[in-house]
Amino acid sequence: MTAPLAEEAARLLERLRERGPRVHCLMNTVVRKLVADGLSALGAVPSMTDAPEEVEAFVGKADALCVNLGTLDAARRAGIDRAVARAGEARKPWLLDPAHCDYSPARTAYAAGLLARRPAVLRANAAEFALLAMPEDVVAVRTGETDRIALGAKAVAISNGHPLTARVTGTGCLSGALAAAFLALDAPPFAAAVAAMLALGVAAQEAATTARGPGSFEPALIDALFNLSPEDIRREARIDHDQSGL
Amino acid sequence: MTAPLAEEAARLLERLRERGPRVHCLMNTVVRKLVADGLSALGAVPSMTDAPEEVEAFVGKADALCVNLGTLDAARRAGIDRAVARAGEARKPWLLDPAHCDYSPARTAYAAGLLARRPAVLRANAAEFALLAMPEDVVAVRTGETDRIALGAKAVAISNGHPLTARVTGTGCLSGALAAAFLALDAPPFAAAVAAMLALGVAAQEAATTARGPGSFEPALIDALFNLSPEDIRREARIDHDQSGL
Amino acid sequence: MTAPLAEEAARLLERLRERGPRVHCLMNTVVRKLVADGLSALGAVPSMTDAPEEVEAFVGKADALCVNLGTLDAARRAGIDRAVARAGEARKPWLLDPAHCDYSPARTAYAAGLLARRPAVLRANAAEFALLAMPEDVVAVRTGETDRIALGAKAVAISNGHPLTARVTGTGCLSGALAAAFLALDAPPFAAAVAAMLALGVAAQEAATTARGPGSFEPALIDALFNLSPEDIRREARIDHDQSGL
Repeated sequence: MTAPLAEEAARLLERLRERGPRVHCLMNTVVRKLVADGLSALGAVPSMTDAPEEVEAFVGKADALCVNLGTLDAARRAGIDRAVARAGEARKPWLLDPAHCDYSPARTAYAAGLLARRPAVLRANAAEFALLAMPEDVVAVRTGETDRIALGAKAVAISNGHPLTARVTGTGCLSGALAAAFLALDAPPFAAAVAAMLALGVAAQEAATTARGPGSFEPALIDALFNLSPEDIRREARIDHDQSGL
Repeated sequence: MTAPLAEEAARLLERLRERGPRVHCLMNTVVRKLVADGLSALGAVPSMTDAPEEVEAFVGKADALCVNLGTLDAARRAGIDRAVARAGEARKPWLLDPAHCDYSPARTAYAAGLLARRPAVLRANAAEFALLAMPEDVVAVRTGETDRIALGAKAVAISNGHPLTARVTGTGCLSGALAAAFLALDAPPFAAAVAAMLALGVAAQEAATTARGPGSFEPALIDALFNLSPEDIRREARIDHDQSGL
Repeated sequence: MTAPLAEEAARLLERLRERGPRVHCLMNTVVRKLVADGLSALGAVPSMTDAPEEVEAFVGKADALCVNLGTLDAARRAGIDRAVARAGEARKPWLLDPAHCDYSPARTAYAAGLLARRPAVLRANAAEFALLAMPEDVVAVRTGETDRIALGAKAVAISNGHPLTARVTGTGCLSGALAAAFLALDAPPFAAAVAAMLALGVAAQEAATTARGPGSFEPALIDALFNLSPEDIRREARIDHDQSGL
């Protein structure tokens, strides 16, 4: 089962490069530039506003949505609510990243409400997952030293990547945005999530070969996403069945 | 006509380095750091707030203004309105960048209203220009593979630059901010726009000689702006008459 | 006196690496990513929201606070007020950086009000200090070509660092955040400030050995913070008594 997943990821990367899908991000204010650059390096076309009065027009232009709850405030919540409603009406796939929801009960509650509106994918870390009840029909991506991707009883573990990734602020947020870029191709959400984690993980391994620390790792990671080939994914993918559950 | 324009651009760069003009940016929330770093690398002094209660004081300290409509919301509109009014009273030059106004009818209308208040320069891409009626007395800068700069019937095309520039989020926004930095020297707006497009284009060519992708291109571009000499502009400028109109 | 200060700074760096203190930043919107990356490179764990409805929960999770007044608006002021009140109740140390308060009388007045609420440390440049009346019990850090750190009559000057630092937007803001990271170890505020200025200054010297301009200096600075050892601080520290007063 895992070799076909790597092959599917490689083909999705080819398709992404051909189509250049548009991804609208409701992104925290810390990492907007990194996420936009990462999407663009991979081959997608990012946009970023979350102003309530404009966000529906931007969602209308987009092929998928990435909703990230970092630096959440009333204005961003209003923008997110409208964007998710518009995505639902237009049947555009969206991903939820409940960034730092373990820091704030208000944010946990808001994340739970959004999860009930059925994103295609939820991306979170272990602490965030611990606070959220996963619907069976939402793909769960738990990033960490090993990335685990699950849909109901089906689960895989991806052990690509490099520890420096965690030292660069926003790489987790970027992983969610990359998954949204693959969702934008109308790929099955499980395959889209696998493709994104493989793309970022394989790129991180390449970046680490030249990096002298997290500062030089970041531009090297963007370069590696830009230069990443389907063949790199086929050759480097480390996917295993995962029975542990999330 | 084009050799004197390159010579004038080279002299404006010298003057910019001597004076260190202050440029206040009403900038979208994605690329503020890149724009500030690019202005600083060239030799200008950036500032960035758009809070309505403070922006007039910042405009008062500045020599020119860059108004960018990315991530537009009610608070940014209020700040922009006050800043443009204050710039008008104080006869300080300003540039308008209607970023992504082709994504949102509300933004197009707002951009049209600002254009009627007569910035010295409008910088936009082809899709954005298509939606805006250019006043005859505003310099039009259309960036793309070739940059075209026009004022009424007078028009030039600049073919410096490198394709990686378009893969780094915010380089278009930066080109507008650099034009504002040259406007801050009380240069004629047409000459200021030419100088900015040459500076960024020549720096991009230098950056591309070492870049391995858009990630390493970005710091190399900032380095190249920092190290750019008037002689580099004289030697590398590729300016042609342009009869095609905008 | 100065050799023991360098030794204390070296030991504080060791302690910081062991503990990984959490630093919550109420940071301007321009440099959030750089500040987060710099904190993370040094070994601290950053968080960033300033939304009034969530900031108290984030302060509750943090070991220290960095309050930076760049891009100040009504929402950020409300978040700052709540965060500082919460830090006071919980006796968590905080640092004030009145960024650009010399540009706006409203910001100067707000900074003066915060200073009266007794941060552990005030970090500012000469123009900002000139407008603020220092309480005797607050450590004053004046950054510039030489960094001066004073508490009442006790004062030292640190001459580490490199001129490229000033060409990268946000390095001053980062110096304040690093001081907050050392405050988070319950170090005496004077020693925490010395440790932060030494860490950034020694890292800057290392970064300058490879940088070709401010663009490549920035990732090199993050790498150098990541790779900085206590021994580097012991060997490179340049601290002198300062009798000039601030």
